[in-house]
Amino acid sequence: MCGKEQATPVSKSFAPTKSSLDAITRINDDRIINLDQGDPMMFETYWNQMGDKCTVEISGYEWMSYFADAGNLCWFLLPGLGDAIKRLHRTVGNAVTEDRYIVVGTGSSQLFQAALYALCPPDALRPVSVVSAAPYYSCYPQLTEFLRSSLYKWAGDAYAFEEEGPYIEVVCNPNNPDGIVREPVVNRDDGKVIHDLAYYWPQYTPITFPANHDIMLFTFSKCTGHAGSRIGWALVKDKAVAAKMVEYMTIATIGVSKEAQLRAAKIMQVITDSYLDLAPKDVELFFEHAKRAMADRWKRVREIVAKSEMFSLPKYPLEYCHFSSNYTMTNPGFAWFKCKDDIGDCSNLFRRHKILGRSGKFFGVDAKYCRLSMIADEESFNLFLRRLSAIVETNDVPSGL
Amino acid sequence: MCGKEQATPVSKSFAPTKSSLDAITRINDDRIINLDQGDPMMFETYWNQMGDKCTVEISGYEWMSYFADAGNLCWFLLPGLGDAIKRLHRTVGNAVTEDRYIVVGTGSSQLFQAALYALCPPDALRPVSVVSAAPYYSCYPQLTEFLRSSLYKWAGDAYAFEEEGPYIEVVCNPNNPDGIVREPVVNRDDGKVIHDLAYYWPQYTPITFPANHDIMLFTFSKCTGHAGSRIGWALVKDKAVAAKMVEYMTIATIGVSKEAQLRAAKIMQVITDSYLDLAPKDVELFFEHAKRAMADRWKRVREIVAKSEMFSLPKYPLEYCHFSSNYTMTNPGFAWFKCKDDIGDCSNLFRRHKILGRSGKFFGVDAKYCRLSMIADEESFNLFLRRLSAIVETNDVPSGL
Repeated sequence: MCGKEQATPVSKSFAPTKSSLDAITRINDDRIINLDQGDPMMFETYWNQMGDKCTVEISGYEWMSYFADAGNLCWFLLPGLGDAIKRLHRTVGNAVTEDRYIVVGTGSSQLFQAALYALCPPDALRPVSVVSAAPYYSCYPQLTEFLRSSLYKWAGDAYAFEEEGPYIEVVCNPNNPDGIVREPVVNRDDGKVIHDLAYYWPQYTPITFPANHDIMLFTFSKCTGHAGSRIGWALVKDKAVAAKMVEYMTIATIGVSKEAQLRAAKIMQVITDSYLDLAPKDVELFFEHAKRAMADRWKRVREIVAKSEMFSLPKYPLEYCHFSSNYTMTNPGFAWFKCKDDIGDCSNLFRRHKILGRSGKFFGVDAKYCRLSMIADEESFNLFLRRLSAIVETNDVPSGL
Repeated sequence: MCGKEQATPVSKSFAPTKSSLDAITRINDDRIINLDQGDPMMFETYWNQMGDKCTVEISGYEWMSYFADAGNLCWFLLPGLGDAIKRLHRTVGNAVTEDRYIVVGTGSSQLFQAALYALCPPDALRPVSVVSAAPYYSCYPQLTEFLRSSLYKWAGDAYAFEEEGPYIEVVCNPNNPDGIVREPVVNRDDGKVIHDLAYYWPQYTPITFPANHDIMLFTFSKCTGHAGSRIGWALVKDKAVAAKMVEYMTIATIGVSKEAQLRAAKIMQVITDSYLDLAPKDVELFFEHAKRAMADRWKRVREIVAKSEMFSLPKYPLEYCHFSSNYTMTNPGFAWFKCKDDIGDCSNLFRRHKILGRSGKFFGVDAKYCRLSMIADEESFNLFLRRLSAIVETNDVPSGL
């Protein structure tokens, strides 16, 4: 399952390449645009407008202990962050938090690993199969395989899964890379499900119901755009599973940075207060701003794509969003491009035009697909639009493809 | 190698037990004192005196990106933290930083795992053996075994290691739990060495030379007492090893909290400035304060222990400390108690007196040893001294032992 492409995972997932370095340091039209990762810099504009409303101050003598809340199952969770998470979910209506254990993590990737650890018996004779319906998030296989654990193994596309015995299905909803609403597909009694709800926020998708699953993962990165903080959280129904996840976090990193938790709590509280009329309304509400900005980006991309038959993008149904109280469209954090058949390798095409995306083959599907970030900084996004226009208008498939 | 005790690792290492919860919430003489973990709260007094000198302020719009320094091999390391680490080491003289790669981690436990990942070939037929001379830090076996990786396996005491083939030796210097100066003991050509220098700071031990090893791990927790920040760093000689450690960090947690890095950088810069006469001298210098406080605690513990033959503690040679420019004593972060033979289980004895320590059996040696933290908060430490006096003076081995 973990083929050649997994052997050099980082260049295909996260670490900056020579190209992305160029993208950051050289500001001109000729630079390479890195849309491979989902670095959510588009939201920086909003937080700039907010000025010092979310500023946190931490003195040298504060939060020195490993412990944040010794009475809590998750002993390293700041009570203020736990409260902020619950308030935010109640305000948005995207997840049930009552009677749930909150486990904080260094981003949701770490909590994914914690969940695998929690769901796999330490003494099983065979590793538990981990599956997800293709196209699946490219980091799931990597996170499952990189330490060659004998607790679990990556078993690929959930649609094709036929092995007997216990398994774990990861359901990403709305799905990364394609934004589609997802449900479990294996549905056997011996299965456990991890719901990755990183993008279940109003700027990306209609909030159709409060999610109420056994293990739900969220990340601060995609909620507010604060990727640098490395804060994720899990809402967990079962106490024993939550305790095992905390055990994982305890061994792996002895908890989570208190500074990052403090800042995440502050930012979440400011957002929630603004929705509850507890704060002055001199700045647009966060999710309204973010939703408008995402919709605008998607409109512009779709307009360009519609000019030719080179590419297609997924279509999403209009659905009633209980948060917005109206019918809204899905505007995912990634655009899932499909090239027409004679182009072949979609990410190669973009690469030749100095646009870095991630090939469909890392998501368990064909190379005619390519995932491009829709949440990059304004300048990169505008430059991307200009190049995409040029590709589409000239029908310019560079030579050598 | 990974026996029953490893199956419930957390209660034996880090997570708060019902007892430690009591220790935190009940402030009276009857409470249980948790000296099991090395929560470095004794240094809080110093940072309180420093008032706002180390305060950091972070606005909502700052440090949102995953990236901190895309041009650096360690692309998530804040340049300010890299600089602060180098300046601090140059000031203290405890490690060579020239021509070294710095890899930042979520505490040094995470970097230990990153080093294992970096040193073990992904396609080896057999897991690489990981050893450390007993008594070894109780978390090494746990960190090596908890995911049942087939890249590496815990192979126990380095003194007893006779297996052929590649191996990794972890050298903790000065050693946790016993404070002894350590060197590698296996010394074969097919071995790699990880040096854990968590306690190689002037408050714990004489700085006899600038350490100059291939992989050196440090942690902010034990350097300044800021355990809550979860900041560790590795100084790595070989570029390919550093790159693989960065790869581990990229997959496992997509880097390290920027907020924690900012605060660590600020605190290290304040310490270094104070030694370089760049700051006003209205507060004692950090390492002088910390060294004095550690020496004072050790003196008080040794005075009590000397009153009977119930316990013994390691003796350390007086050595020349290049940082202090005089002969100084080792005053480790942990006291490594040895009970006389007829007592038997040392941690049980302490537990009956409501003192939680960690049994020698978790360090690969006999239960007549027990590790107790010497860096707890003032109140806990004073209460510990009173109870230790009572045990020693009454020769009070509680019934039922």
